[in-house]
Amino acid sequence: MTEASLSKTPNPQLLPGCCGLGCPPLWASVLTAPTMAALRLLSVWTLLLTVTVCDGWLFDGFAARRHSESDEVALWPLPQKFQTSVDAFRLSSASFQIVHAKESTAGPSCSLLQNAFRRYYSYIFGNGRKHGKNLENVFDADLAELQVQITSADPECDGYPSLKSDESYQLEVNQPTAVLKAASVWGALRGLETFSQLVYEDDYGGQNINKTSISDFPRFAHRGILLDSSRHYLPLKVILANLEAMAMNKFNVFHWHIVDDQSFPFQSRTFPDLSHKGAYHPYTHVYTPADVKMVIEFARMRGIRVLAEFDSPGHTFSWGKGQTGLLTPCFSGSSPSGTFGPVNPILNSTYDFMTRFFKEVSTVFPDAYIHLGGDEVDFSCWKSNPDIQKFMDQQGFGQDYRKLESYYIQRLLDIVSTTNKGYMVWQEVFDNGVKLKGDTVVEVWMNNNVDKELQNVTGSGFTAILSAPWYLDYISYGQDWKKYYTVEPLNFEGTAEQKKLVIGGEACLWGEYVDATNLTPRLWPRASAVGERLWSDENVKDVGSAYDRLVKHRCRMVRRGIPAEPLYIGFCPHEYSGN
Amino acid sequence: MTEASLSKTPNPQLLPGCCGLGCPPLWASVLTAPTMAALRLLSVWTLLLTVTVCDGWLFDGFAARRHSESDEVALWPLPQKFQTSVDAFRLSSASFQIVHAKESTAGPSCSLLQNAFRRYYSYIFGNGRKHGKNLENVFDADLAELQVQITSADPECDGYPSLKSDESYQLEVNQPTAVLKAASVWGALRGLETFSQLVYEDDYGGQNINKTSISDFPRFAHRGILLDSSRHYLPLKVILANLEAMAMNKFNVFHWHIVDDQSFPFQSRTFPDLSHKGAYHPYTHVYTPADVKMVIEFARMRGIRVLAEFDSPGHTFSWGKGQTGLLTPCFSGSSPSGTFGPVNPILNSTYDFMTRFFKEVSTVFPDAYIHLGGDEVDFSCWKSNPDIQKFMDQQGFGQDYRKLESYYIQRLLDIVSTTNKGYMVWQEVFDNGVKLKGDTVVEVWMNNNVDKELQNVTGSGFTAILSAPWYLDYISYGQDWKKYYTVEPLNFEGTAEQKKLVIGGEACLWGEYVDATNLTPRLWPRASAVGERLWSDENVKDVGSAYDRLVKHRCRMVRRGIPAEPLYIGFCPHEYSGN
Repeated sequence: MTEASLSKTPNPQLLPGCCGLGCPPLWASVLTAPTMAALRLLSVWTLLLTVTVCDGWLFDGFAARRHSESDEVALWPLPQKFQTSVDAFRLSSASFQIVHAKESTAGPSCSLLQNAFRRYYSYIFGNGRKHGKNLENVFDADLAELQVQITSADPECDGYPSLKSDESYQLEVNQPTAVLKAASVWGALRGLETFSQLVYEDDYGGQNINKTSISDFPRFAHRGILLDSSRHYLPLKVILANLEAMAMNKFNVFHWHIVDDQSFPFQSRTFPDLSHKGAYHPYTHVYTPADVKMVIEFARMRGIRVLAEFDSPGHTFSWGKGQTGLLTPCFSGSSPSGTFGPVNPILNSTYDFMTRFFKEVSTVFPDAYIHLGGDEVDFSCWKSNPDIQKFMDQQGFGQDYRKLESYYIQRLLDIVSTTNKGYMVWQEVFDNGVKLKGDTVVEVWMNNNVDKELQNVTGSGFTAILSAPWYLDYISYGQDWKKYYTVEPLNFEGTAEQKKLVIGGEACLWGEYVDATNLTPRLWPRASAVGERLWSDENVKDVGSAYDRLVKHRCRMVRRGIPAEPLYIGFCPHEYSGN
Repeated sequence: MTEASLSKTPNPQLLPGCCGLGCPPLWASVLTAPTMAALRLLSVWTLLLTVTVCDGWLFDGFAARRHSESDEVALWPLPQKFQTSVDAFRLSSASFQIVHAKESTAGPSCSLLQNAFRRYYSYIFGNGRKHGKNLENVFDADLAELQVQITSADPECDGYPSLKSDESYQLEVNQPTAVLKAASVWGALRGLETFSQLVYEDDYGGQNINKTSISDFPRFAHRGILLDSSRHYLPLKVILANLEAMAMNKFNVFHWHIVDDQSFPFQSRTFPDLSHKGAYHPYTHVYTPADVKMVIEFARMRGIRVLAEFDSPGHTFSWGKGQTGLLTPCFSGSSPSGTFGPVNPILNSTYDFMTRFFKEVSTVFPDAYIHLGGDEVDFSCWKSNPDIQKFMDQQGFGQDYRKLESYYIQRLLDIVSTTNKGYMVWQEVFDNGVKLKGDTVVEVWMNNNVDKELQNVTGSGFTAILSAPWYLDYISYGQDWKKYYTVEPLNFEGTAEQKKLVIGGEACLWGEYVDATNLTPRLWPRASAVGERLWSDENVKDVGSAYDRLVKHRCRMVRRGIPAEPLYIGFCPHEYSGN
């Protein structure tokens, strides 16, 4: 007996319950004995939705057309409000279309949407489906099209997603037409993903969708995945595949920890030696400006921000290879040891370099934020260096090297501010008392005293994101996704105002032990647990119902070409055959 | 600073050391000042070999031709005895050949070797290399060919590898011809792998090999990998890829845990309902007779035995779906509960079924052994069943259900004996005092009291294999390969005779959390650590030198298309681009 089958036991007593928003439903009919009988045929999934979310439960005389295969419908992350019905429509691969609604402010010139229409058509029907000749052969029970209506004057077709983007959408699936409404393309992208998740295959390979009404929006505005391309170089293909998977899980920030001690794959036009000497290989292990552009555009098309991190003053060993004089020479006794420590904070040349470097970075990456790192600065090299000591004396820092660190960060922040970018920093920068701009985002990553840290950061009026409980590089035997899933980010003491300052979180997959060979299955579906936590309502927290949906969502990712690993014993109708 | 670079520091004082077999070397010249200078240019890898294995160190006037890229040479598992030199030869993809030696008892009709020649040519030159026109254009310093000489009257070209196969080989790489000698094809396969590992690429993309002399043989005869195709179905492609990787690591047993509680993918001709009803899906999630044949032949071509396991009387839930009456009906009070327990040991029909089933199995799988399982039998269902209780009374078993288990196993072993197969069992069968044939192999898997168990099993005169310390499904953060590597299988109290009875071990990757999406990177290179432990001399145990070689061996696997995961921070010259 598998865990999967055990957790599937429905609880019939809970079935007719209906509470919360959207109840009673628009098209609900009266409960009758036959529909009660039909109920027993309903998919466990839908039952679980009812039990867990308690947000409308609808059935009518069309129950007989409902297929058991709708078991395969599993929304992930779960929408905020939705109602579904047993009334099912068919989608013909030959005639079904995703189109711009007449009233939409976006049209065929919106390549972002055009691209998304094609992508989701493929997800629904597979790439191998042929377009038949019977384009007019639409049956009564067919869903003929999905109309996408953008309602804002500016649909943001050519813009970049931002922290302020409106990702909400409304989706009405009814015969003969489904309508997806969103203020901007960002909400439309999320709604298209949901629409594609509603479609399920019947025994004959046909695609079906049930009458459904959804109103959805994210709980948190910042829902990120951190990938580390320094400890191992990640080929472009891997990054793009994971952006695809992020979109399937409604993540909207790719935190690109692009350089670190180990290598500097970012190719700078201003300082080409940084990658030429600091990358693992100057040609095969770098990201050219064209590569970076491609990542940014690929992400944009999926409503994903690319938040680049250039961590300093620590974690910069690789910078020193291509930029002589940037790092602090460490001393052994009274002479240089030949090794180097963090960025040298006492030289004007350092700040000249940073000014030019971040000027370039700020133009390469369109996002309104840059992540400046600031974590884990090792003071031992600074301590060993007599010039640094002299500077400490001059500045009156005594032996408090945190003051020196703050001095550096302060100057760096001022530099970056001149580029009109906002910045994100790791929590140490806040902890060390650096003066920060009001819009700074502090990333809480240390897994001791998380609650206290969130309390302090938000108590000081700063915006915070949480990554501490979601370091996915720390693997262990078994279903650790449950641990990630049951985190409640706002479970700290603070005012309502403080809670509002927690704008999201990130699942981090640091690169010590991952590269192109194992990254994708290690990240998914474990990160999906974080995805739902950051998107769905805080009351969506039942692990059993999440398991059932996530098993199916994982199979859906596999079917779409993402080698997401299994949660536990079982199988997918369409197994991964990749490689 | 990475762990990799730290562990690379050579210790020059140890360089000239030479001890053990094969010293002084055949072609060693006198140490001179220039060669000492050349020494500093030598690869760290070779230095480490010297330090660790202390088995000959050779250099001569050709040092200048040695390339630093020979860093990439890393033998895994390390041969028993070898000598190498700085004298390097080139291999031309246009003219280099692997051929049968004139004196060989095998020739072009030996398709196993023909296939292997092609495979290793591809590994050395890549599939994309063009055969040039200058077939005659052989230079003085070229290695023109590798001659493979089989010395036994029967080269075993069309045979199957067995526990008794001779896998030893001698390899002499010298100009203009390298010679690989082996008694049978099984040794030749191992030698071809070693030869291919000696070849390294220079800065200009050319292939080189150093003058080398190797005499090699495995420390243990049984070197296995267990894969579980029941908890998750493994597509054929995944199984074949892992057989490839096994050959790269000189494993010689594929322990195929083909069925279990969760599913029965083995398609039986005699009892087709077993897979039709017991597999996850009767068509997409089964191994047809043709599939099984292909696995066996693919493995044979690589000198790998396919040891099928049909575990009973426990772990048989899936058997019951297609074979009514086979499993014990469990009782709840005085009536059947509707659930089923282990195989029903009190019915004649059970033994009739097993007789016919294992008759088929014994013809499908050519190996001399079948694994009969016998682990983890849950007695609660047997206890609940009144018919079983009556039988227990009749037999005088009292309440000792281990006696009932032994009764079943005893009869099963007798059945299997009539097929002229030997059998392997999990340790419980021995622990429970079942009478076993003298050639039975007992697999020690419980990780408590391993030493005591090995002592008992071998003390009773039975052959043992060890898998307890190598359950690779138990993942953890960091470099757990070191834990697997440092196991010493013979580290138990016992006579020399007893130690001889430990014939090998297995790395087990149980299937709860692995399928096609993540199996290969999870298995490799972690299993490689077990591979070297089982092949190389017991004194080959330095973790630091193993790390350096394994990093390179892992990159070699990646280059050959196996997505072996990284050991730690770093990069491969040719990264995995798969998917």
